Amino acid sequence: MKRIMPICCLPFGCLIVTLCGCATPEKSAQDSGEWTIPLGSYSATRHSRLNQIDSKNVGKMRVAWTMSTGTLRGQEGQPLVVGKMMYFESSYPNFVYGIDLDNVGKIVWKFAPEQDKFSPSVACCDLVSRGVAYADGKILAATLDTHLYALDAKTGMVIWTALNGDPKLGQTMTGAPLVVHDKVIVGISGGEYGVRGHITAYDLNSGKQVWRAYSVGSDQDILFDAKTIDGATQQAVGKDSSLKTWEGDEWKLGGGTTWGWYTYDPQLNLVYYGTGNPGTWNPTQRPGDNKWSMTIMARNPDTGVAAWAYQMTPHDAWDYDGINESILTDSVVDGNTIPTLTHFDRNGFSYLLDRRSGKLLSAHKFDPSTNWATEIDLKTGRPVLNPDKMTKEDVNVKDICPAAQGAKNHQPASYDPRTKLFYVGTNHICMDYQAFGVKYKGGFPYVGAILSMFPADHGNARGRLIAYDSVTGQTKWTVDDMFQVYSGPLTTDGDVVFYGTLDGWFKAVDEATGKVLYQFHAPSGIIGNPITYMHDGKQYVAVLTGVGGWAAIGLAEGLTKGSDGLGAVGLTASLGDYTNLGGTLMVFSLE
Amino acid sequence: MKRIMPICCLPFGCLIVTLCGCATPEKSAQDSGEWTIPLGSYSATRHSRLNQIDSKNVGKMRVAWTMSTGTLRGQEGQPLVVGKMMYFESSYPNFVYGIDLDNVGKIVWKFAPEQDKFSPSVACCDLVSRGVAYADGKILAATLDTHLYALDAKTGMVIWTALNGDPKLGQTMTGAPLVVHDKVIVGISGGEYGVRGHITAYDLNSGKQVWRAYSVGSDQDILFDAKTIDGATQQAVGKDSSLKTWEGDEWKLGGGTTWGWYTYDPQLNLVYYGTGNPGTWNPTQRPGDNKWSMTIMARNPDTGVAAWAYQMTPHDAWDYDGINESILTDSVVDGNTIPTLTHFDRNGFSYLLDRRSGKLLSAHKFDPSTNWATEIDLKTGRPVLNPDKMTKEDVNVKDICPAAQGAKNHQPASYDPRTKLFYVGTNHICMDYQAFGVKYKGGFPYVGAILSMFPADHGNARGRLIAYDSVTGQTKWTVDDMFQVYSGPLTTDGDVVFYGTLDGWFKAVDEATGKVLYQFHAPSGIIGNPITYMHDGKQYVAVLTGVGGWAAIGLAEGLTKGSDGLGAVGLTASLGDYTNLGGTLMVFSLE
Repeated sequence: MKRIMPICCLPFGCLIVTLCGCATPEKSAQDSGEWTIPLGSYSATRHSRLNQIDSKNVGKMRVAWTMSTGTLRGQEGQPLVVGKMMYFESSYPNFVYGIDLDNVGKIVWKFAPEQDKFSPSVACCDLVSRGVAYADGKILAATLDTHLYALDAKTGMVIWTALNGDPKLGQTMTGAPLVVHDKVIVGISGGEYGVRGHITAYDLNSGKQVWRAYSVGSDQDILFDAKTIDGATQQAVGKDSSLKTWEGDEWKLGGGTTWGWYTYDPQLNLVYYGTGNPGTWNPTQRPGDNKWSMTIMARNPDTGVAAWAYQMTPHDAWDYDGINESILTDSVVDGNTIPTLTHFDRNGFSYLLDRRSGKLLSAHKFDPSTNWATEIDLKTGRPVLNPDKMTKEDVNVKDICPAAQGAKNHQPASYDPRTKLFYVGTNHICMDYQAFGVKYKGGFPYVGAILSMFPADHGNARGRLIAYDSVTGQTKWTVDDMFQVYSGPLTTDGDVVFYGTLDGWFKAVDEATGKVLYQFHAPSGIIGNPITYMHDGKQYVAVLTGVGGWAAIGLAEGLTKGSDGLGAVGLTASLGDYTNLGGTLMVFSLE
Repeated sequence: MKRIMPICCLPFGCLIVTLCGCATPEKSAQDSGEWTIPLGSYSATRHSRLNQIDSKNVGKMRVAWTMSTGTLRGQEGQPLVVGKMMYFESSYPNFVYGIDLDNVGKIVWKFAPEQDKFSPSVACCDLVSRGVAYADGKILAATLDTHLYALDAKTGMVIWTALNGDPKLGQTMTGAPLVVHDKVIVGISGGEYGVRGHITAYDLNSGKQVWRAYSVGSDQDILFDAKTIDGATQQAVGKDSSLKTWEGDEWKLGGGTTWGWYTYDPQLNLVYYGTGNPGTWNPTQRPGDNKWSMTIMARNPDTGVAAWAYQMTPHDAWDYDGINESILTDSVVDGNTIPTLTHFDRNGFSYLLDRRSGKLLSAHKFDPSTNWATEIDLKTGRPVLNPDKMTKEDVNVKDICPAAQGAKNHQPASYDPRTKLFYVGTNHICMDYQAFGVKYKGGFPYVGAILSMFPADHGNARGRLIAYDSVTGQTKWTVDDMFQVYSGPLTTDGDVVFYGTLDGWFKAVDEATGKVLYQFHAPSGIIGNPITYMHDGKQYVAVLTGVGGWAAIGLAEGLTKGSDGLGAVGLTASLGDYTNLGGTLMVFSLE
C-alpha cells in the first residue's frame, strides 16, 4: 500500500515523504476514502471530505449490507477501512473481524480471544470495546481482560500479545489503541475499582513495553519532569505535583483511569488524552486537588514524558471522569490562528486550550443546565464552584447538573473545518448525589456514592445533538432526543451529520440546520460512531449498532424493572420499550 | 376485530359467518394482508395473494426497518401480523414481543419468561422457537422448558400457563402451537433423549389439558379406536397397532416426538402432523416397525382420536425424523380433483396422500440422490429398501443419501395454487452411519449412532431450492446453494419466491425460472420463514434472521474448529467464514 505520511516528526514539524509499509497510518485517510484510525485522523475531527452522499440525496440512502457482531452487549466503537478490507471489534468476548469488501459478507478471518472469565464481573459500564487500530499491516486490539493483541491484518493470526493489567484488581480495557511511530499507546479502565490509571506504550514490532505513565503518584511514576507545565498556571509543575495534592496513601487508589480516546499532533509530537475520576466518588475521603486526575495530558509518544497537564476539575466531587477526547484544530483567537485543542468535558464545559502549552483560552457551558460551577476562571484555570452543589459524605446533594454520566460522555464529537463548528452528541441530565465512606478491597467496587439521575429541566429530552462554536460558546442549533445521544457524530463535505440514537434510529441531519433528512430504524440502539469510506467508486456510511454502555446499563444487565430513580438505570428505564440488545454492523449507501 | 371465519365445522363443511372476537383465526388471513397463523393458513401453503411487490419491481426492494431479537441463537420461526400489531418469539430465552406497526420499532410489550435453566442443556439442535400462535385476543407461546403461555395480545400479560413436559427427562418445546376451535394444540421435542412423543390439546380459555395423544403405546395412550385407518393398507389398524410393533418395553422410549408443524382441514375437521424418529438411532436395539413413529397422523382436534395414520419409514434406521409439515391442497389425480396432503419427508421422498383416508397416491424422490430405498410401493405403502444402506449396530454404513438431517428438514415449503407447484428449501447431503448400543438414562442423550455428513454428489451444493410437482414428481427448476436451504420459502401472486440462505442472503427469485431478482446480505444466516403483510396500503415482507438450528449447530455451539467430518458440525464447518450468530427481524418493502 502506498501512502503519503509523516515519518520523522521533530518538535515543530514533520518530514513528509512517500513510502510503503510504514508504521504510522496517514493523517488524511478519512479524506482518501479509507478510515484507518479509530477517530478517522490523529486530530479526531471525524470529518470526511467525501461528498457523494450529500444533503440533497441522503434521503435516498438505503441499507447496503449488514453483519451481526455475534454478541449482545453494547457496541461503542467503529469499523476501520484499510484498502479493500474492513476491520472491527465487537463487545465482549471481543471478537475481531477482517472482512473482504470486494466480497460482501465474507469473513476473511475472525479472532476470538480466550479471555479471563472474571473480567466481565468488574466492568462497570457494560462489556464494550471502542475499536481496533491499524498500523504496518497489523490490527491492534485490546480485550476486556487487559490483553493487547497485534494481529496480522491479512490473516488474523496473533503476532504478539501483551498483558496490560489485572482484572482481579478491577482493571479492564475498553479503549481503542492509538499507534504513533512504532508505539502502540493504550489506557486502562476501572475507575470504579480504585484502579490507578496509566497509559502505556508497547513496541509495535515486538509488543514489549516501552514506557508507562501513571496519572497519579511520584514524578517518576507519572513521567513528569522539570519542564512539565501546569496548563492552568503556565508555570512548571514543580516537584511531587501529584503526591502533594493527596492525603496519605489515598493516591495509590487515585483513579485517573485512561479509557477514552487519544489524539496526536505530528508537528508538536504530542499525544493528548484525558484522565478520569480520582478513586472513590466520595470526595470527603480524599481532600486536595487529587492531581492529575481529571486532567488533559500532553505527552511525548516516544518517551511518555509530559509536556503539560491541565486539570479541569480539581477535587472532583461529581464523577466528572475527564477522559473525553481532545480534538485538534486551528482556531482564530484574538485575531490569531493558533493550534488549539477542544475538549467537551463530562462536567458540562467545553475547553479551548492552546495545545502547545495547555494554556486555557476559553471555557463555556455547552450544556446550559450546568450548575456545579458558574464559570471557569480563565486566569486561574479553575472552576468557580457553586457551594450548593459541592458533595460531601453522608449528605444527599440534590439537583446537580450535569449528572455523573456527563453533559457528554465518551462519544466523540465531530469538527467541520468548513463551518468551524463542532457537532456533539450530548446528554441533558442532572442528579442527586450522596457520598458515603468506603473501604478498598481489590477487585470490589470502590465507589462511595449513591446517585439518582434524571432529565434536566424536568423534561423528556435526556440528550441533544448540538452544532457548537467552541471559541464563542455559541450553539447554532440543537436537536432534542428522548435519550442521551451516545453516538459520535460524523460530518462530511456532503453537508450532512450522521449519528445514532439510543432508541435505535440512525439519522442523517442537515449540517446547516439540524433538520432530519433520513432516518432508519436499526436493529438496536446506537452507541457507536459512524464512519464513511469509498469502495469501488461508491461512498458508504457504516455504523456498529447495539445498545448498551453506561447509558443503557439497565438494559445491558437486565435491570430495568422497577428501577425508576436508580442511578443510570432509572434514567433509561423506558428504553426497553424501544430497543433490544444485539450487535449489528449496518452499512448504508445510495442506490 | 371483525373477521369472516368458520365457527362451526361439521365433518364435511363449515358454517361461515361474520362475527367478532372468535376463537379460530381465519383461514385466509394471508390473503387479506395479515399473517395470523404460523404457516399463514391452516393449509400451510405459505402463499399470499398480495402482489404489490412483484417480479418486475422486487429488484427495487429495500430494508424498511429492523429489530434485534435480543438473542444470539437460531431463529426458526416467523412473525405474525394481526391488525396493526406484529408478534414474534425469539430463540431461547424465548422472548415474545408485541410490536406496534403504526409506530415503527415501538415494543408495546415484551414477555421474558423465567425458565428452567436446565432445558438448554437437553436441546439437541439449538435453542430455537418456531413461533407463536394467535387466537381470540391471545398469543400462545411455547418455551424451551415446556411451558405453554397464553398472553394477552394487547398487554403481554400472562392469562394462563400450562406445563407440557419435563426438561429433566430431555423434554423441550420448540414448535409453534396451532389453535383449532377452542383447543391449543402443541407437540413435544426431545427425540434424541428417548422421549415418548405426544400432542396435547389445552383449552384456549382456561389452559386446562383436554386430551393428550402419544405417538407410541397402548391404544388408550395413542387415542386410536376401531375406526382408525392404516393409511398404507386402508384397513382398520386393529388392536395394539403400536405395541405389537415393538419388542419388550422399548416402546416406552419410543420417540415419535412431535416438534414440527400442524395443519388443519376445517371441512374434514382433521389436524395433520408428523411423528419423529423411534427412540434410539440404533435400529438393532428396537426390532419391528416401531409404530407409530415416522408417521403422518390425522386426528380430530376436539377429541384427539386418530382418523388415520400412515407410516412412511417403518423401522427407521437413518433418523429420518418424520415431523415435516403436511400441506393441504387439491390435486388432480387420475383426472379427479381430490383433497390431498403433500409431505416432503426427511427421507427424500415426497408423499401425496388422499387426506380423507391417508391413502398413498404417489411418492417420488424429490432429492435425486436418495438411495436408502428405491421407491415407495404404492400397493403396500412401504419403502422398497436398498439392503446396502440398511444400518445396524457396530457397522459403519457408508454413503447413505439423504443424511439424517434430511433431504428437507422442518423448513416449511410453499405451494402456489396458480402454478400448482411446490417451492421447497431442500438439503442435498449424504452420510456415513454407525449404530451402537446405548442404555437409557433420563435426561441424557439416547442416540446410539455416530454420523458423518457430507454434500451429495461429492459436490459443494449442500442445498437446493426447487420448484416441484408433487403429483408427477417432476422438478421444474433448481437453484443450487452452498449450504442447506433451511428457510421456508414464501410465494406470492407477485410471481416471486422469497427465502433465505444459511450464509445470510435474503433472496427473491422469479417463480417461473428461479432467477435471482433481489438479494440482501442479512446480519446473520437465515433459518426462519419469510411472511408478507399489508400495512397502510403497503406490502411488506418480513423474516427473522439468525443462524443456528441443526444445520448450523457447530456455529451455534461454537464447535466449528477442526470439526471436518463430525456429523452435522463438519458439514457446515466453513459457515463461520460467511456469517455470525445474532437474531434480527428484517422487514422489506418497495421505496
